[in-house]
Amino acid sequence: MSCVFCAVVSGDAPAVRIFEDDDYLAFLDIRPFTRGHTLVVPKQHFVDLTDTPAATLAGMLAVGQRVARAARASGLHADGNNLAINDGKAAFQSVFHIHLHVVPRRSGDKLSFAKGMLVRRDPDRERTGELLRAAVARLDAAAPD
Amino acid sequence: MSCVFCAVVSGDAPAVRIFEDDDYLAFLDIRPFTRGHTLVVPKQHFVDLTDTPAATLAGMLAVGQRVARAARASGLHADGNNLAINDGKAAFQSVFHIHLHVVPRRSGDKLSFAKGMLVRRDPDRERTGELLRAAVARLDAAAPD
Ligand SMILES: [Zn+2]
Ligand SMILES: [Zn+2]
Repeated sequence: MSCVFCAVVSGDAPAVRIFEDDDYLAFLDIRPFTRGHTLVVPKQHFVDLTDTPAATLAGMLAVGQRVARAARASGLHADGNNLAINDGKAAFQSVFHIHLHVVPRRSGDKLSFAKGMLVRRDPDRERTGELLRAAVARLDAAAPD
Repeated sequence: MSCVFCAVVSGDAPAVRIFEDDDYLAFLDIRPFTRGHTLVVPKQHFVDLTDTPAATLAGMLAVGQRVARAARASGLHADGNNLAINDGKAAFQSVFHIHLHVVPRRSGDKLSFAKGMLVRRDPDRERTGELLRAAVARLDAAAPD
């Protein structure tokens, strides 16, 4: 069975990585709703909320919280974030390796957000990745685990 | 300071309750996107992802997972769920007591989902609550903590 997110985790598929530890990987969505739209996945393959252990969800959300805080503190200047888990095909899940969306938002971006849902393209993904990684590093330095 | 979700937790404001333990409460959204749209809140007041402890988020998501599984197993016959945290006003957060949305979905409901986002009304909220509570109870009996 081939899973695109397992391939990202193993390095067989390319990705702009934002954060990584032993159990989780955060990387930029290749079809972002907004600049900095990040996916957080457990490195172990689970499908959806029916099979993922609660402890794995907890760790995935903790990484998502770090990314969300970093987006606010970053050069992306986010004022907030939408976090979402799509659980099942009926809920628009398209890759069946569970993942958490972190979508940075800015005040008054409603129109560009709507446009982003259609266009889903970041003209400078590498720079976006740098900005988010730098903010994650700064927050980690300020408040280490 | 007055907070509508603190009032729901204390019982000062009415709600159709789905699940409750010492630390969390799940209740029906009064303006549901779909039938069974549930909000999970920590009983302690936190605002958003900038101030909520990771452990509190973990517990909130674990309750959300139970509700999501219950929605699939319930008389609502959900085929999946959208789970979401809106972190900040810029991200459409409207009540500033952190909460997790659990939105049950059915296969092929895209049109009624879009309609539900506009109408946001459940003609039989009490019955919806009964169906979800019954499914939570059945799942808890099958796999107790
Ligand atoms: Zn996988
Ligand atoms: Zn409150």
